[in-house]
Amino acid sequence: MQQVFASIITIGDELLIGQVTDTNSPWMAQELNKTGIWLKRRVAVGDLKEEIVHALDEQSKDCQIIIMTGGLGPTADDITKQVLNDYFGGNMVTDQRTLEHIRYLFEKVYRRPIIQRNLEQADVPDVCTVLFNERGSAPGMWFERDGRVFVSLPGVPHEMKGLMLKEVLPRLQQHFTMPFISHRTLLTAGVGESFLAEMIKDWEAQLPPHIKLAYLPHYSMVRLRITGSGASKEKLENDLDQQFAQLKQLVAEHMVVDEDKPLQQVVGDLLKQRHKTMATAESCTGGYIAHLITSIAGSSDYFKGTVVSYANEVKENVLKVSHDTLIQDGAVSESTVRQMVQGALITLNTDFAVATSGIMGPGGGSETKPVGTVWIAAGNKDEIVTQLFHFRFDRARNIEMAAINALNLLRKFIASH
Amino acid sequence: MQQVFASIITIGDELLIGQVTDTNSPWMAQELNKTGIWLKRRVAVGDLKEEIVHALDEQSKDCQIIIMTGGLGPTADDITKQVLNDYFGGNMVTDQRTLEHIRYLFEKVYRRPIIQRNLEQADVPDVCTVLFNERGSAPGMWFERDGRVFVSLPGVPHEMKGLMLKEVLPRLQQHFTMPFISHRTLLTAGVGESFLAEMIKDWEAQLPPHIKLAYLPHYSMVRLRITGSGASKEKLENDLDQQFAQLKQLVAEHMVVDEDKPLQQVVGDLLKQRHKTMATAESCTGGYIAHLITSIAGSSDYFKGTVVSYANEVKENVLKVSHDTLIQDGAVSESTVRQMVQGALITLNTDFAVATSGIMGPGGGSETKPVGTVWIAAGNKDEIVTQLFHFRFDRARNIEMAAINALNLLRKFIASH
Repeated sequence: MQQVFASIITIGDELLIGQVTDTNSPWMAQELNKTGIWLKRRVAVGDLKEEIVHALDEQSKDCQIIIMTGGLGPTADDITKQVLNDYFGGNMVTDQRTLEHIRYLFEKVYRRPIIQRNLEQADVPDVCTVLFNERGSAPGMWFERDGRVFVSLPGVPHEMKGLMLKEVLPRLQQHFTMPFISHRTLLTAGVGESFLAEMIKDWEAQLPPHIKLAYLPHYSMVRLRITGSGASKEKLENDLDQQFAQLKQLVAEHMVVDEDKPLQQVVGDLLKQRHKTMATAESCTGGYIAHLITSIAGSSDYFKGTVVSYANEVKENVLKVSHDTLIQDGAVSESTVRQMVQGALITLNTDFAVATSGIMGPGGGSETKPVGTVWIAAGNKDEIVTQLFHFRFDRARNIEMAAINALNLLRKFIASH
Repeated sequence: MQQVFASIITIGDELLIGQVTDTNSPWMAQELNKTGIWLKRRVAVGDLKEEIVHALDEQSKDCQIIIMTGGLGPTADDITKQVLNDYFGGNMVTDQRTLEHIRYLFEKVYRRPIIQRNLEQADVPDVCTVLFNERGSAPGMWFERDGRVFVSLPGVPHEMKGLMLKEVLPRLQQHFTMPFISHRTLLTAGVGESFLAEMIKDWEAQLPPHIKLAYLPHYSMVRLRITGSGASKEKLENDLDQQFAQLKQLVAEHMVVDEDKPLQQVVGDLLKQRHKTMATAESCTGGYIAHLITSIAGSSDYFKGTVVSYANEVKENVLKVSHDTLIQDGAVSESTVRQMVQGALITLNTDFAVATSGIMGPGGGSETKPVGTVWIAAGNKDEIVTQLFHFRFDRARNIEMAAINALNLLRKFIASH
């Protein structure tokens, strides 16, 4: 059995002028990984024939699978389909099923007039297998040459995802015989990457060659992931279980969860197990904690709501923070976040609540409370815990850091009550 | 004067297993563009010497600037520095300024014990110019060979950004003589890419070769960007102004703003001009509109707060939606979002408010109200407008679509009142 390597080529000038962030590639990499395909490289090129052809030539030298996204739109700057037709020596023909689907989408779903450019999206090279795209007008295309597979997909994320799951991954699994790949992931919080590395260096040094460790830091959290590959599923899973058990013991005091699960889901699962509810009272995080919580499907089982109290009058009128506290201690203070938790518990009628108040910058800082100062509180009707943080640098990062630390404080509080 | 091309090489296994999204490259591309450097390609490779060396060889064939990020951390999987030392034939020496800075960071800022791995981050090849990283422990490195510039930066976003702005971009501008590059961008909403293309095809066909058009769709918005390059700043700006004026006329009815500005900032600017305030009452968007609004620095000037009413009891108790309405029409109904706006205007005491209620999926849909059904309302104390949407597919996309359309409805309402 041979290791199967893939390369992703993303096509589009928008990737090179920086107006879009490529969220497709990480998702595709994860899905390929799960089926035992290693991503060797990712390349982003512009909407230029010579660049696309050069990338195809280069990537097919040492990868058996080349997946392209983008450049399939109806506008003049989208040239991928024509380039592929030339590259594989085909002729353009109309795919009837796609043509009917385009007519259906415009008439019934988009309810927009259909124009020639849209109809032409049904034209495909006669040397490809058409991958029907039920979510959009541009079909996927599958080409084979010299034992390699070349797949072209639209860049629109939900169209790409639909095609990958329904068409591409099942076909790749049929086409190649692949080694078994498996992962174990755990999440830590409140400790740095280098400090963790020191804690586990002896364990890391004894890892067998078919198991690799990755450190995946994200704000104040670090995920540790071990990945193994092998011919026998049973032996590999067994090896991974043993190594993972050792790793968990070594980092036990900093571990949030021993799965690849976001913190907001860990909080949600804790609440579901206990049949409890939560609310957030957010000043500096501006609703971001609520957004993280509600990004999880089914969060309405345990999340009741939020008061974002950006203005002090909302802290007073809706969350019942005392006027005197706001005057004497200020909005960014321990007493304010305590009262915000109390107010949220009553106003939103929940078992637990978490609150934030801080200065996110770039303006608003002072000598005693510089930009990055954030008070966080979490609690229930009997007890409230607080924590003071000093973040730095940019606004977006401070919002993210404050939200993650608030969720982690809430998690620890729920777990111990 | 010669066109200067750059390539970005991002280094790290985490990019190939899909556990991080690369937000560095789009930012770097934008900043390079502003200084007249075109990004020709982006490549992501793993933490493997042969892969890094191959990418350096390949990218330096047709790019004068190669910028690398990542692989400079203190852990064993980070090998970029050693690979570059070998590639450029140097010897490792300790950079004293960086060493002192690392000691300072651990003692005064991180307040964590310092270990040998951290101190070794001050070691650099003696054939590079060290770029001092005030935001972190890994310094940047600048190498030159055969007229090419190679820069290595840490992958941590705020560290990379600090180094780019303070060290890399000023040095590149000194090093190369570059053509002048300029852009004009406008934002449209509510109309598809192909429909826009049809509206402006004659104008697009007459564009001179030094001016290029890009369509940048993002959910239900499309940005149109024209980019020109030339030796004379004055002539280029003049050419762009003329073309942009024509484009604006052609798409006037769908244009949100004639700048490269996010919708949430357009809403904020409208409110600031009018000295008015706003609030949000969010059910299905779960605080995401508030997050978008508060991601803009200075939003406390016009944004007072939010009630996220995920539970019906919060709609009733805090936003004063009538119990009868919730029973008879349901939470996802025109009458509910109207009352949510009214409730937010009173509870949060603002001039304008926007409200959302819908079914985001994957669960919760019914025959009459399938997943993707969203009611949106915006208004003031005198008038409320509503709109019904039918989104489809995944939860994250539905939240994003609902938030953007809510902001756009609010924008149109404020602009006309």
